[in-house]
Amino acid sequence: MRRSMAALAKTVLKDDGHVVRRVAIVGGTHGNERNGIFAARHLLKDTKRASRSTFETTVDLANPAAIAVNRRYVDEDMNRCFSREMLGRKATSREARRAEVLDQALGPKAAEERRMDLVIDLHNTTSDCGYALMMRRDDALSHALCATLQKQYEDVRCCEWDDKPDHATLPSCGRSGFTLEVGPVPQGVADAVTYQKTLELIDSILDAVEARNQALLSQKSSVTLEPLEVYRRVDHVDFPRDDDHVVAGLIAPEVIDFKPLEPGQPLLLGLDGECVKTHGESDLTPFFVNEAAYYEKGVAFVLAEVAEVGVEVVS
Amino acid sequence: MRRSMAALAKTVLKDDGHVVRRVAIVGGTHGNERNGIFAARHLLKDTKRASRSTFETTVDLANPAAIAVNRRYVDEDMNRCFSREMLGRKATSREARRAEVLDQALGPKAAEERRMDLVIDLHNTTSDCGYALMMRRDDALSHALCATLQKQYEDVRCCEWDDKPDHATLPSCGRSGFTLEVGPVPQGVADAVTYQKTLELIDSILDAVEARNQALLSQKSSVTLEPLEVYRRVDHVDFPRDDDHVVAGLIAPEVIDFKPLEPGQPLLLGLDGECVKTHGESDLTPFFVNEAAYYEKGVAFVLAEVAEVGVEVVS
Repeated sequence: MRRSMAALAKTVLKDDGHVVRRVAIVGGTHGNERNGIFAARHLLKDTKRASRSTFETTVDLANPAAIAVNRRYVDEDMNRCFSREMLGRKATSREARRAEVLDQALGPKAAEERRMDLVIDLHNTTSDCGYALMMRRDDALSHALCATLQKQYEDVRCCEWDDKPDHATLPSCGRSGFTLEVGPVPQGVADAVTYQKTLELIDSILDAVEARNQALLSQKSSVTLEPLEVYRRVDHVDFPRDDDHVVAGLIAPEVIDFKPLEPGQPLLLGLDGECVKTHGESDLTPFFVNEAAYYEKGVAFVLAEVAEVGVEVVS
Repeated sequence: MRRSMAALAKTVLKDDGHVVRRVAIVGGTHGNERNGIFAARHLLKDTKRASRSTFETTVDLANPAAIAVNRRYVDEDMNRCFSREMLGRKATSREARRAEVLDQALGPKAAEERRMDLVIDLHNTTSDCGYALMMRRDDALSHALCATLQKQYEDVRCCEWDDKPDHATLPSCGRSGFTLEVGPVPQGVADAVTYQKTLELIDSILDAVEARNQALLSQKSSVTLEPLEVYRRVDHVDFPRDDDHVVAGLIAPEVIDFKPLEPGQPLLLGLDGECVKTHGESDLTPFFVNEAAYYEKGVAFVLAEVAEVGVEVVS
């Protein structure tokens, strides 16, 4: 492997040279996010579409019980069941039991070697996030795939999860993996334009994995270092709430996904329309603005630091 | 009352000269439609906002059990519980029992005289319907209020329910009444801009009722006949479904709320993106396109005939 790399004063995510042998595409981790459910159903039927010569692709629906009733979850949020801590407990909910099964198929996290080299978990969100890949901060392959996608699609963004050692999301079971969030899409709804674009993005991701594999297998691969803008989750803001903790306010219209906050701009409004919280700082950027499922989690929007990292891309 | 009326070759909805004494504003008939829930909560707190000199306004939340769990309903859709047939049965579900209580407060439908002269039921929809008032075909007051609103707001539309003798919706309990649909708003979400506009529309509706009352009470009222474009619900189209009746397709992007269908345009797509149904006729117009709650009801979108009616407006 030949490396051409300028010295850059930033984080560099180094490609590990590992050929991707198994990719998992998963829909329906949340049972009311139809975009990913429909995409997974299509790929289960049209098996050729997700096939490539150098790796095996499996497609699955994560939470059939929740899909059947068109709800995010039946007992508890499955996408919070994949931490080592949760997987180490005796599972009591339907989602936790199903998470154990999926962890065996994708990971398992407890093992050094993971069954899946790459896990793509298909979600949708009511926030106006466009197409956002959400990943671990140290996941070099996922970052490189995102950098490759950005050359084709200007509305694709890279988001990084919290800096925690033990993530609880489904794609964290794989060696690499990310959540593909698309929005705005209401819960329970699929939109044809967003759906078609999601399938296109999946095609492009699988093509990029295939191209990297081919390069690595050819013994003539080269590595370039490419800049990638990342939105690094650092905090969140809750809704205004009344004395019974019931949501009693709204997100100010000026708070827009991936638009940096201005000093002093309104963040939250009361039901009477009065501003109840203004923002004093200017160095943070919101995303997941008004995601329906986050009302119960106490998140009106997430706050991110914007950073540039260097990503090794193999070709 | 002085009437100035040109002879028009169309339906004329005559004002009955009845002073409005009681108005009910209701939110949360569907527990995950936060826009109306938030508006009702605000009006319950700011009681002056919905007060006018000539009538009494009551504000209520229709389905607190569904609101508490952020779902459309707990046992069954409450907005299908208000038919005479349903109200005549022994109520077995939580929604049907609550519908009986509400029917006593708003109607009752079984009585000749109704307690409420006007019922405004606040909903939101994932469809891109803008601001649409949904009403009985013979409800002169609601049509007149819609005609008045359209002078102030160009994105307000009048829709008419099916031509059935026994409607099952909450506002059908009142002497007059309509559903105020606003969209697109995802389930479980409130959007500040839509919310503020909803409150403005409510203000304007109450102002229009007050002005009509004042005119009638002054004994110097006049009546003008005004044209109103109405979308008359006549049919609907279901999603493509697989052998197990599971939704297996999408609404074509060309199907847009209140945009007349073109002959031969695609209506529905399969999950592979292929057109599975084209439309041969051109005289119908869709609305409620991709309303999340209608997947279970077998409605991808509603089809309407567009008609012009004459509405008597008192001033």
